[in-house]
Amino acid sequence: MPEPEVFDESVVKVERLLRRVAFIVKRRGRDILADFGITNPQFNALLALKEKEHMTMGELCEKLMLACSTATDLIDRMEKNGFIVRNRDTQDRRVIRLAVSEKGQQVITEVLSARRRYVASMLEKLSEEEKTQLAQSLDRLHSLMFSEKVNP
Amino acid sequence: MPEPEVFDESVVKVERLLRRVAFIVKRRGRDILADFGITNPQFNALLALKEKEHMTMGELCEKLMLACSTATDLIDRMEKNGFIVRNRDTQDRRVIRLAVSEKGQQVITEVLSARRRYVASMLEKLSEEEKTQLAQSLDRLHSLMFSEKVNP
Repeated sequence: MPEPEVFDESVVKVERLLRRVAFIVKRRGRDILADFGITNPQFNALLALKEKEHMTMGELCEKLMLACSTATDLIDRMEKNGFIVRNRDTQDRRVIRLAVSEKGQQVITEVLSARRRYVASMLEKLSEEEKTQLAQSLDRLHSLMFSEKVNP
Repeated sequence: MPEPEVFDESVVKVERLLRRVAFIVKRRGRDILADFGITNPQFNALLALKEKEHMTMGELCEKLMLACSTATDLIDRMEKNGFIVRNRDTQDRRVIRLAVSEKGQQVITEVLSARRRYVASMLEKLSEEEKTQLAQSLDRLHSLMFSEKVNP
C-alpha cells in the first residue's frame, strides 16, 4: 500500500468538520421533509425551480448536477404528487418548462420555516460576534466551493 | 395560508449557506466515491465502524440514524463487496460484530486523501486568520448541532 499523504492539521480538521456538519444538516433536513412526504432530492429540485423559474429539464439536470434520467424520474414523481407542473413554452410549443405548483410553494415555505427554527435554536446560543464570524466563514467557504465547482 | 414566520437575517443567511455548503460537500463526496464503487451511505458506515470498532448492527443503526432494515441492506451489500466483515463475538458467540476489511480500510484512506486534497485546494486561497476563523466557526457549529441532536 502506498504511503498515506500528509496534510496540514487545518485541512484534516476542516474536512472532518465539513463532512460531519453536512451529514447532520442532511439528516436533520430529511427528518423535517419526512413530515411533508417529500425527499431531499425532491426538495432540492423545488428550491432550484423557485430560484430560477421556468427551467427546462435540461437546465434543471445541470443545476442539480444529476443525470437527466435521474432528474426526469424525480420530476415525474413530483408532478404526480402535485408539487410541480409541466407547461408548454408560450413562444415555442415544443419546449416544456417546469414550474412550482401552489402546493409545492407551500411546502417550500413550511420546510424553510422549520429549518430556520432549527438554525435559530442553535444561533441563539452564540454571541453576536460568533454569529457574524460563522456567517462570514460560511459565506467565504461557499464562494470558494462554488468557484471550485464551476472551474474545476 | 398562514402568515409566513419572520426570522433574523442572520438565521435566514446561515440556513441558506448551510444548506448550500452541505449540498456541495455531498455532491463532491459522491463524485469522489464513485471512483471507488461505493455510495455515500456506505462510506458513512465505513467511517462509523472505523471510529468505533466492533459495533453490532443495533449500535450501527443508531450511530447512522438509519432504520435497522435500511442499515442491514447496506451492510449486506458492503459485506458482499468486501468492504466489511461480520465476526462472532469472542465472549458471546450469539452476537455478531462488524469490522472494516483491509479493502474497506484502503478505500477510507484513499477517499479521505481525495477529500483532503479538495479541502486543501480551497484553504490555500484563505489567509491564516481566515483559516483559523473557519475552523473555529465549524467547530462551534458542529458542537451545537451535535448537542441539539443528542438532547432534542
